[in-house]
Amino acid sequence: MSKMNPKAYIFDVFGTIVDWRTSVARKVDTFFSERGQTVDALPFADAWRGQYVPAMAKIRSGNRGYVPLDVLHFENLKQVLSDLGLGDKFSDAECWQLNAAWERLDPWPDCVSGLTTLKQSAIIAPCSNGSIALMTRLAKYGGLPWDCILGAEIAQNYKPEPVVYHACCEALRLQPQEVMMVAAHNDDLVAAQKAGLQTAFIPRPTEYGEHQSKDFEATGDWDAVVSTIDELAR
Amino acid sequence: MSKMNPKAYIFDVFGTIVDWRTSVARKVDTFFSERGQTVDALPFADAWRGQYVPAMAKIRSGNRGYVPLDVLHFENLKQVLSDLGLGDKFSDAECWQLNAAWERLDPWPDCVSGLTTLKQSAIIAPCSNGSIALMTRLAKYGGLPWDCILGAEIAQNYKPEPVVYHACCEALRLQPQEVMMVAAHNDDLVAAQKAGLQTAFIPRPTEYGEHQSKDFEATGDWDAVVSTIDELAR
Repeated sequence: MSKMNPKAYIFDVFGTIVDWRTSVARKVDTFFSERGQTVDALPFADAWRGQYVPAMAKIRSGNRGYVPLDVLHFENLKQVLSDLGLGDKFSDAECWQLNAAWERLDPWPDCVSGLTTLKQSAIIAPCSNGSIALMTRLAKYGGLPWDCILGAEIAQNYKPEPVVYHACCEALRLQPQEVMMVAAHNDDLVAAQKAGLQTAFIPRPTEYGEHQSKDFEATGDWDAVVSTIDELAR
Repeated sequence: MSKMNPKAYIFDVFGTIVDWRTSVARKVDTFFSERGQTVDALPFADAWRGQYVPAMAKIRSGNRGYVPLDVLHFENLKQVLSDLGLGDKFSDAECWQLNAAWERLDPWPDCVSGLTTLKQSAIIAPCSNGSIALMTRLAKYGGLPWDCILGAEIAQNYKPEPVVYHACCEALRLQPQEVMMVAAHNDDLVAAQKAGLQTAFIPRPTEYGEHQSKDFEATGDWDAVVSTIDELAR
């Protein structure tokens, strides 16, 4: 391969670095239990995440100005509660408390060691649709050793809009071909490759549990396909 | 004091965290030596830094759009070389190489340990006029364990404009009173206090060497005055 070693690796986070589904479900379960109620926590997490793409669509299409993902998560939570007939059960303060579940998601087991190794030879940063606030708190919770926080907020738009990948490269004063996008989602890599970045796929076949229907393997011509972040570092 | 413990500490960097003057002078000395030339390195560093405030003034006044500090440093370097009658001595590539001196500045001795301790109980981030690229590389060089990189670039303006302090708070989803600005420069704290932040002064009496004329001590009613960052952590 004639490509240079990347000077920076930027990462998708939800699914690629952290197991959002079981983490959110656990927080949902606790939240309801503490209030003497029960809920089917994994389907609740799935429904909450299910609102993610449509909520961003309005912003990507230009029909709504940029708002950070924390706000979209909050709005989506209200929608899920309403759909379950629980729309008036909890105060806004309680909903914000539950919303913070997204700030405490467990990293996949290979991430902290892999990122720590990779950081010795290159810049590492999230290129997530999560906000700076969310990514910062998530990193503190999980011990993710990012060099800086990049992603949607610095671009004021959402992936897979090309401006997000380009804004990350520009913020580092690097050319797209000097930067590698790492993701567990082929469609994220399609967009990154079109934007001129190098690409690496890392399968996370349990991200969606029994509902996982795609991204079991690389479906594009990516520069690297690895099983763990440690492998990327080698 | 009735104020709450800060949830985040944001730091001035040039002078407060890193000793830019002797670090830049050393790089200047090496750069000229490698080319069989000599230069008075400390005055060169002083002259280079001397262009900093006027270069930002055009942007703060709205007469020029935001450009990252890396570009201003480069333009300022060309000016300093020109003033010394060396305007045509070096290629642009060589000037960019020398410009990278600002990415390799030594932290004051208390910073890495102090920031590492502080990070256990709060978010820590630079609120510098340096760009994301510059702050990221500076952190890697000096081992500064920031949680994220905030400052001028996310505000697209320069301190002491209030928007810079406010943008840092907003990026963390915190209120100004939940954030403490830490600086070795009283005027930075004047602006931060006006913007509603808590303030801490840490004297760095050798920042400007024999030319230091101010900031030997706190001249405002700051929330904390400390000798080291470790002291702030305690």
